[in-house]
Amino acid sequence: MTDDNLIMTLAILGGTGSEGSGLAVRWAASGYRVIIGSRSAERAQAKADELNATFDAGNICGMGNVEAAARADLVVLTVPYAAHQETLEVVREGLQGKILVDVTVPLKPPKIRTVQLPDGQSAALEAQAFLGDTVRVVAAFQNISAEHLLNFDHPIECDVLVCGDSKEAKAEVLRLVEAAGMRGLDAGLLQNAIAVESLTPILLGLNSRYKGRGAGIRITGLDL
Amino acid sequence: MTDDNLIMTLAILGGTGSEGSGLAVRWAASGYRVIIGSRSAERAQAKADELNATFDAGNICGMGNVEAAARADLVVLTVPYAAHQETLEVVREGLQGKILVDVTVPLKPPKIRTVQLPDGQSAALEAQAFLGDTVRVVAAFQNISAEHLLNFDHPIECDVLVCGDSKEAKAEVLRLVEAAGMRGLDAGLLQNAIAVESLTPILLGLNSRYKGRGAGIRITGLDL
Repeated sequence: MTDDNLIMTLAILGGTGSEGSGLAVRWAASGYRVIIGSRSAERAQAKADELNATFDAGNICGMGNVEAAARADLVVLTVPYAAHQETLEVVREGLQGKILVDVTVPLKPPKIRTVQLPDGQSAALEAQAFLGDTVRVVAAFQNISAEHLLNFDHPIECDVLVCGDSKEAKAEVLRLVEAAGMRGLDAGLLQNAIAVESLTPILLGLNSRYKGRGAGIRITGLDL
Repeated sequence: MTDDNLIMTLAILGGTGSEGSGLAVRWAASGYRVIIGSRSAERAQAKADELNATFDAGNICGMGNVEAAARADLVVLTVPYAAHQETLEVVREGLQGKILVDVTVPLKPPKIRTVQLPDGQSAALEAQAFLGDTVRVVAAFQNISAEHLLNFDHPIECDVLVCGDSKEAKAEVLRLVEAAGMRGLDAGLLQNAIAVESLTPILLGLNSRYKGRGAGIRITGLDL
């Protein structure tokens, strides 16, 4: 991290996808500098240009994943599960000392509405195991529909469960959740990402069964 | 099942616990006959007497687990995970041809706020594997706090995710959810019980971290 207490530049790897783009415009609107990362720097820049134009922003730029990770204070991973491991491999060096927010859901098409745990039980746990202790992995945003993120016309009625083993890193991510317009809740250790990630196939099934377009969850019963 | 289309008598194994008792009084209030099952028939009857008196019901009785399972049209399992397998073994015969609603959460004390998947990945999946195809296992109610069930003064602000491989069995259980005063949602195959069961440790952690007493979930974003 360039400055331990001042996270200003966020990289969103896989940011050309709808979830990453949704987070990018939310954080850009809150004043963060946002780097869209992609395997192709050209596609990343094209998406950044599109988002800046559509959302009247100017603080989104695009780069290849490796450079994006290296330049950012904090890195967010929003790739399909099939690209999760290969992306971690190429950005590993640039992540050292930083927080990685893993948004990846281990969906295995075509059965995306049924829980299929990955070998490491969760994408975020696999990331932490691969990256080692010098990167603090926090799992978050897996249950938030991109449709809501990209639509500023209504409040987002979904809570973000934030899991991680570093309290300090979770606190940073909880601030980012709020900056993106949602309520974040400390959901315990990174091990609990198993529950959060595996809820997404259920939400996708509910969307299909009950004609929703962005099913999410609200936690009830807390004194908040 | 004594009559395939008319479920009137419910057995709640482990019904002397707070979750089972909460479900018992809810269903008794809706007109079902409810049998509290316990390892001890005496304790089961004592709890039934107490619930009948406290909630002005007359349709709750108590029996040993084996007899309770044999007499019921549908059986609900609300035992601690440590007693899950041994309970299934003794009631296996009585469950044949019936629906088993598994409410068990595979908590492993003392770390009850951290997801710890059981060998079969979920208690309900373990039950289905042990019981075989002649029993239809449905997973439900794992995220509902007993405090809410036992308190008729306020509506329960929690949804019940219902997982199972038999659509017909899920439809029966969705009716029971409604009878207990909650909204039930078809959450897909029994495999998805992994997500629902593993959400409970997170809810217990949220209760502790945010001073809640009965954290639960509401599904948002559906056209319902």
